[in-house]
Amino acid sequence: MFEPEGRKVCVPIGTTVLQAAREGGVDIRSECGGKGLCGKCKVIIKSSEALSELTDVEKKLLCRTEVDFGYRLACQARILGNVTVVIPTESILFFRKIQVTGMERSVALNPAVTKIHVVLAEPTLSDVRPDYERLLDALSDAVKVNDLEMDYEILKRLPDIIRGSRFDVTVAIWHDRKIISVEPGDTSNRMFGLAVDIGTSKIVAHLVDLTTGEVIDVGSVENPQITYGEDIITRISFATAKPENLKILQECVVGALNKILDEMLKRKKIDPHEIYEVVAVGNTAMHHFFLGIQPKYTALSPFTPVLKRQLNVKARELNLNMNSCGIITTLPIIAGFVGADAVADALATGICESDEISLLVDIGTNTEVLLGNSMDMLSCSCASGPAFEGAHIKYGMRAVAGAIERIHMTSDFDIEYETIGESKPRGLCGSGVVDAVAEMFKYGIIDWTGKFNTKLEIPRLRRSNGEIEFIVAWGCETATGKDIVITQRDIREIQLAKAAIYTGCSILMRRKGISETEIGRVLVAGAFGNYLNPDSAKILGLLPDVPTEKIKFLGNTAVTGAKMALISKETRKKADEISRKVRYLELAADPTFKEEFLKATFIPNKDLNRFPSIRSIIEEGL
Amino acid sequence: MFEPEGRKVCVPIGTTVLQAAREGGVDIRSECGGKGLCGKCKVIIKSSEALSELTDVEKKLLCRTEVDFGYRLACQARILGNVTVVIPTESILFFRKIQVTGMERSVALNPAVTKIHVVLAEPTLSDVRPDYERLLDALSDAVKVNDLEMDYEILKRLPDIIRGSRFDVTVAIWHDRKIISVEPGDTSNRMFGLAVDIGTSKIVAHLVDLTTGEVIDVGSVENPQITYGEDIITRISFATAKPENLKILQECVVGALNKILDEMLKRKKIDPHEIYEVVAVGNTAMHHFFLGIQPKYTALSPFTPVLKRQLNVKARELNLNMNSCGIITTLPIIAGFVGADAVADALATGICESDEISLLVDIGTNTEVLLGNSMDMLSCSCASGPAFEGAHIKYGMRAVAGAIERIHMTSDFDIEYETIGESKPRGLCGSGVVDAVAEMFKYGIIDWTGKFNTKLEIPRLRRSNGEIEFIVAWGCETATGKDIVITQRDIREIQLAKAAIYTGCSILMRRKGISETEIGRVLVAGAFGNYLNPDSAKILGLLPDVPTEKIKFLGNTAVTGAKMALISKETRKKADEISRKVRYLELAADPTFKEEFLKATFIPNKDLNRFPSIRSIIEEGL
Repeated sequence: MFEPEGRKVCVPIGTTVLQAAREGGVDIRSECGGKGLCGKCKVIIKSSEALSELTDVEKKLLCRTEVDFGYRLACQARILGNVTVVIPTESILFFRKIQVTGMERSVALNPAVTKIHVVLAEPTLSDVRPDYERLLDALSDAVKVNDLEMDYEILKRLPDIIRGSRFDVTVAIWHDRKIISVEPGDTSNRMFGLAVDIGTSKIVAHLVDLTTGEVIDVGSVENPQITYGEDIITRISFATAKPENLKILQECVVGALNKILDEMLKRKKIDPHEIYEVVAVGNTAMHHFFLGIQPKYTALSPFTPVLKRQLNVKARELNLNMNSCGIITTLPIIAGFVGADAVADALATGICESDEISLLVDIGTNTEVLLGNSMDMLSCSCASGPAFEGAHIKYGMRAVAGAIERIHMTSDFDIEYETIGESKPRGLCGSGVVDAVAEMFKYGIIDWTGKFNTKLEIPRLRRSNGEIEFIVAWGCETATGKDIVITQRDIREIQLAKAAIYTGCSILMRRKGISETEIGRVLVAGAFGNYLNPDSAKILGLLPDVPTEKIKFLGNTAVTGAKMALISKETRKKADEISRKVRYLELAADPTFKEEFLKATFIPNKDLNRFPSIRSIIEEGL
Repeated sequence: MFEPEGRKVCVPIGTTVLQAAREGGVDIRSECGGKGLCGKCKVIIKSSEALSELTDVEKKLLCRTEVDFGYRLACQARILGNVTVVIPTESILFFRKIQVTGMERSVALNPAVTKIHVVLAEPTLSDVRPDYERLLDALSDAVKVNDLEMDYEILKRLPDIIRGSRFDVTVAIWHDRKIISVEPGDTSNRMFGLAVDIGTSKIVAHLVDLTTGEVIDVGSVENPQITYGEDIITRISFATAKPENLKILQECVVGALNKILDEMLKRKKIDPHEIYEVVAVGNTAMHHFFLGIQPKYTALSPFTPVLKRQLNVKARELNLNMNSCGIITTLPIIAGFVGADAVADALATGICESDEISLLVDIGTNTEVLLGNSMDMLSCSCASGPAFEGAHIKYGMRAVAGAIERIHMTSDFDIEYETIGESKPRGLCGSGVVDAVAEMFKYGIIDWTGKFNTKLEIPRLRRSNGEIEFIVAWGCETATGKDIVITQRDIREIQLAKAAIYTGCSILMRRKGISETEIGRVLVAGAFGNYLNPDSAKILGLLPDVPTEKIKFLGNTAVTGAKMALISKETRKKADEISRKVRYLELAADPTFKEEFLKATFIPNKDLNRFPSIRSIIEEGL
């Protein structure tokens, strides 16, 4: 029995509480995927006599008081009898703010799927042409029929379809070469497609009317793979642990997509068979998971993906609840860690077609950076880690209700903050942590190496268990009653994360011989994007020091790029070009990497010359 | 319980004995498919109190003595309790002589599947090409890789395959455009295919080594669809009665093919995954059944098939026990009743490439006739019915052990006969009936209208139940102890069947303006072929009157044509040409059809001028 939901689950003896929760569909946070590393899956046990003993992991990750209160880690505690488990507020996996739209450029409507309405001559003894050839003859006015192939599933039912509609049918053709539907009557005005962005943490879909190119509905859902690990590497280890696990991860995505689809189709009164095409993007791991392709070697050096090119798969091979003969297209990727989402970003922003030099930074657990213009574009991937998504931060959390997303410090070291959903704070999300660190640096609470200024005596700075921490929100203000603090270790994590991203930007700039002043615009993508304070990002040294007005937040450009490809064959060709042309730089192989990285761990950077606007803040004081 | 096999079957009350036999895998003859028409499914019941009452059908089709002996019709008697059924000799479905080879012309080896062995460079940090692109790059020396597509199932496992073999793999490519296998190591000398002829009554397969083009094994089996009806029309009615029935018929063929395959693969120590391609032929109904394509409208006027062209289907869509990514190709058909088997016949005999004028007659329930040469070829289909296969003939049977296949009459009206398997006779197969009728005509026992000469007083001619019959074998000689006779009605059936075939030949000749003397060769195909006495066929007026030496029997040319297409892409192109070029004539739409047909019911024909060699026999006497 799980509380507060009151969900009952029956599991074999020896099952962990976390597994039981998954089976019962109860969401518990588990950043490490159940490996006993993150300690985020804390639960309170009501009847502890029916559970396994405390493990060493729990002894390490739970404090004395928690143990006394009946706290356990869900991934460690094994169920030996009837158990009632209370999931405390901090361990509930809340749904987060999902960015479902993004910057979009207009493209001419030219979808891969076309529909042709034809009326066939009825067969007679003097015209005994077979059904298929009869149909092709009728289509030959509108399309080159020589290379046309009919989906075998349709062929089997063809005679009944055309006779059931008195030889009056509409044919859906994909890319002028595959007949993917033959339908009774004239249905040429009914034709829909789906653009999908499969993010590590969220899945967003746009339902598109392919006759107009308009988005008619938008749906989104948390990526349910999250219960198998918050980050990509955890999920890849899960996927490769057992052969059936990859299938589980694939089914997670497909199930989530079907859920979004079902809801949208019901709302819009569209039949699943009227969805003829899906264009999907995602980072390389999500791309592989979605396709059920072995992702193991994308996570092992030298990090090779299985394929790069655009792939077209029959809908029924992926069990998506759409026309079973329809086509699912995944856009191409650039390299192992620069995925189809980056290609979609480039499509949506047009950075590969513009003369202006753009720096595109798509921040996530892996941050993709693209730098260049229509002449040449260089890309890299930075192992920024999940700190900006709340992991490895003591009070870090995802951007869900209760997360502090903005922090402003007043000159008397007091704090003003905003939380998502305007509810009582439960922790800090990425933009909150960035603000906090930037503000602490600005007011001298930490120095440029990130160390707390121990000489400062203010109430919010205190020593706890021998470590110094900064109190962002007092217990009396928070949802849990506990103080929300930032520790020295948290600051280190943020320094490492931002250093990784800045190093990527910096090495690309050097490789291409581009200085800060030559950059026309800095485009920040990723869900985290819109909520990030650009000034804080600059103070932190996360982004190159360009004028704030040049920094633009893109929102979900990945799904927008996918939508553009969905409604335009030309855009797909552009996607192929981007995938082929954008060069990839393996940062780890750059000889200056270590040095650059070390410099970038300073706030904003050891090389202050590269941050003139921050230097002036420091020098001028506040 | 079925005897003599001793097989026990458990079925619900009300099941017919025939259904029970099918479920138990016991073979009982049923020419009409269980409709109570043919009366061939006679069985003897040991415990008759547990069965339903005699039906009207049984009262009509069983004689008094049979009823007294406990005979019932298996399709009529319903099981109401424990029953022991004895299947008498005449109702056992024996395996018949199957013609597994045929005339063959040599073709240059150029199969659709090619194998390329490549060793890939292992990925490094400075060469992070994805697995798929790495493989394509390696293949690019040998093949144009731009249009190459990889089967999605292989793609999923690709990284493990290439790493499992230390980047040393062999790639099987179909038609230069589909990667259908990636295998560890160098397997370029292991490549097999299967040529298949799916006949209405038999399925024949040739296992071919695609590296040499040699047939390395031959397998054959009765078409198990036979228990759902002997003829095509019965099976089509079964297939269209319920949606699942078509699936049953498809599974019959696939199951039979898998059985043949398994045996051959075991014998030759070949793994199923080493079978990369199957080329199959069959008449249009068998073609549709095999593909699971709705065959309903091929049996309804105007008899339109679903498709004509060559079709390529993925092996796993048909569940054939071969490489799951392999390809099954069905050769094209010409028209509704001139199927892929006729195309294969044309390929094997080369009649569409020769200047000589050929008449090809493929005798079966539907007889296909092709007439012409490389300039032009005309085809038609004749509804010859199943008489030549033993149906509708009182003592007719298929060409299985115990069938009289040759008859010679001596001048004193005595009979010499040969039986298949040299066993005691149980009935007459097609060639035996043809011989019998021809010999009776030759010796004046019947006149040219087919009527018995009632003035003739010989022991073998007798009146029974008011009808005259000719005794071919006396009860003391036969396996059943009953006389084997030919009735007036049997002769009528044969007259109708041969008239249908001759009418087809005759109308094609007139339409093309070709006389008997212009015909270079008459090619007789079909299983029945080799065993037919050409002189008897001429006397009967089954075939045009050409010198006997011009008549050639082809054996199973259909499977040979399929094999030629399997090992040669050029032959497949020729198949397409044949399918496109061979014109089809709908006999029923020809204005002279009725008149021609009526003339042809005479023996040999009412128009004796067209049978000068037979006229001379008649005029000269014997």
